[in-house]
Amino acid sequence: MSTPVAPRPIPVALLGLGGVGKAILSQLLSPPLASRFQLVLIANSRQSLSLPLPASPLTPSNYQPILEKYGTALDVPSVVSVLSTHPDAPGIFIDSTGSDVIPGMYPQILSMGVHIVTPNKKGFSGSEALYKSITEKSFPNTPVTVYGESTVGAGLPIIQTLKDLVGTGDEIEKVEGVFSGTLSYIFNEFSKPEGSTVKFSDVVKIAKEKGYTEPDPRDDLSGSDVARKLSILARLVPTAPALPEGYASIPTQSLVPDVLSNASTKEEYLERLEEGDSFFANLREEAQKEGKVVRYVGVLDVKEGKVEAKLAKYPVDHAFATALKGSDNIISFSTKRYSPRPLIIQGAGAGADVTAMGVTSDMVKIYERLAVTRL
Amino acid sequence: MSTPVAPRPIPVALLGLGGVGKAILSQLLSPPLASRFQLVLIANSRQSLSLPLPASPLTPSNYQPILEKYGTALDVPSVVSVLSTHPDAPGIFIDSTGSDVIPGMYPQILSMGVHIVTPNKKGFSGSEALYKSITEKSFPNTPVTVYGESTVGAGLPIIQTLKDLVGTGDEIEKVEGVFSGTLSYIFNEFSKPEGSTVKFSDVVKIAKEKGYTEPDPRDDLSGSDVARKLSILARLVPTAPALPEGYASIPTQSLVPDVLSNASTKEEYLERLEEGDSFFANLREEAQKEGKVVRYVGVLDVKEGKVEAKLAKYPVDHAFATALKGSDNIISFSTKRYSPRPLIIQGAGAGADVTAMGVTSDMVKIYERLAVTRL
Repeated sequence: MSTPVAPRPIPVALLGLGGVGKAILSQLLSPPLASRFQLVLIANSRQSLSLPLPASPLTPSNYQPILEKYGTALDVPSVVSVLSTHPDAPGIFIDSTGSDVIPGMYPQILSMGVHIVTPNKKGFSGSEALYKSITEKSFPNTPVTVYGESTVGAGLPIIQTLKDLVGTGDEIEKVEGVFSGTLSYIFNEFSKPEGSTVKFSDVVKIAKEKGYTEPDPRDDLSGSDVARKLSILARLVPTAPALPEGYASIPTQSLVPDVLSNASTKEEYLERLEEGDSFFANLREEAQKEGKVVRYVGVLDVKEGKVEAKLAKYPVDHAFATALKGSDNIISFSTKRYSPRPLIIQGAGAGADVTAMGVTSDMVKIYERLAVTRL
Repeated sequence: MSTPVAPRPIPVALLGLGGVGKAILSQLLSPPLASRFQLVLIANSRQSLSLPLPASPLTPSNYQPILEKYGTALDVPSVVSVLSTHPDAPGIFIDSTGSDVIPGMYPQILSMGVHIVTPNKKGFSGSEALYKSITEKSFPNTPVTVYGESTVGAGLPIIQTLKDLVGTGDEIEKVEGVFSGTLSYIFNEFSKPEGSTVKFSDVVKIAKEKGYTEPDPRDDLSGSDVARKLSILARLVPTAPALPEGYASIPTQSLVPDVLSNASTKEEYLERLEEGDSFFANLREEAQKEGKVVRYVGVLDVKEGKVEAKLAKYPVDHAFATALKGSDNIISFSTKRYSPRPLIIQGAGAGADVTAMGVTSDMVKIYERLAVTRL
């Protein structure tokens, strides 16, 4: 047993080369990961490039023109075939796209013995039918794993911690948190423990200027991103309410006020944003009178059998009020063991590098699981 | 690949049946862990009992008299033999003792192909010679793993998070935290953001009465427990300073004041505790003038090349001042990726159930790693 272990590197295909995809590429090409994984293919939404390159090595700075010049039309099934028939199979399929088509292929990909790691929330937060067909084809029902740590809180260890609590027999009572970096920033600025008078519309505009929002801020303010994350966590808790339609089954408070729901373009919406200011100002005033702040939170209350994404008020000395800063996420787990005080995890919950880390740390877990079989 | 996976349960020996050992036993005998692990032996410091029992099943409430009646003298090498020769080997050796002898046997246990999980800090926080001989015999140098998540922060995911950061190529700048539940409670009571006038000696006495301290409070107040945890973390960071003697190489501020260092018994120490009050009162006053609180922290400052366990002052709006409550631990990771704001993990860092969870969650990781090979 004292022979040094040097498992063969695991073949990897990376689909999606946006901000997160580029950061994954960069991490996979650098130590210590470069010796554990071998990229066999990268692809953007149109083109794929087989690796290694015949001449110079791929780098984070040279792949773009090479992909454009030598890439061939992306065909997902043949990417999966490459991974499943590779001499060093089983391989890992990284779905770093925002596609809602590729997650529909996860069950088939897993059936071919290929592992999946993804920051894409769609496969885990949609219909229960898809979710079940994914989990049926993966561990512990098969030897193949599908991991998505970065779908909630980016690189923060949220999903692994919840799995550890459930997997060691703890009873989850409540999971509650600020899950959106955008909404964290907006409410940390709008409603401070020491009081604040800034207008909601101004904060949203600043957030957009700083690049903290989606191109159309309504995509953040609708709350659906928070609902998707909540549905991913709820499905890990056996005693949580069923969500047949995933995030769409979760009551979700939209922050696009009724008066603005008829705005037809994001430009019109942004121009008319002030029309919603009185709603938020009233809410903040009400909270201040109670010694509280306003936060947009996701709550899985197992005891009450409720899952909700909504505005809520928290005392000014609550962790969601005082400890939360910037655009950080904060998630608190109240359980039978972690009681009366919860287990809390806090930190950047968005951004390319930390999201990529959620992906690559999942890949390390697969590497360690496969190590014994790959000597 | 669609055949359901039902890996054989992993044989386990549990040594140490104090508070944490009993909680481990209870978790291992309950769902969902009971179907994944099979206890083949339990032992306290004197006697061991082979399992399963011939008649009734073992339970957390019946083991004590059975062990006393039917137990045989504990012999660690033969326990290891049972695990290494078991038909369902490799097995897991749980060292839930406080022994400083058993950690010396880890290298040999690992050499026999037996995995180790332990809340015992001694093997990882002592001499570098022992630490190296343990790590040389374990993954990634061999297929056998040694895990100790519960040695720092009990069930909180501190070690795994640090491994994930390092393992995915992040650069650790600083790890800083309140690592002792006892010292957390004492300073959260003694030095509050809103001010406090209570005497240090009174807080220590209350902490002792509440059962938050070791039988001799000097064992907590010496700071060596914090230094041990720090050394365990520092050794996971390749760029951290070397610690040839482990915790003993870390400058550690003792909270047993010089005037009390000549107390020969814990009774004399507790009686004379007030003699140290002025030292702490002065420190608190100094901090209050600066708008700060006093905390006992462990700091690994990689940039400065320093590892220290010491009293330090933090602004009243710092997470260590406002967010920290009760006897919770709080640990903050500042890295290249988690910058300018750190990744923070907070919650109960002591107690039998959460410490046992740190052990059993490590065991689940081994189960998952071995699953593919045990079908």
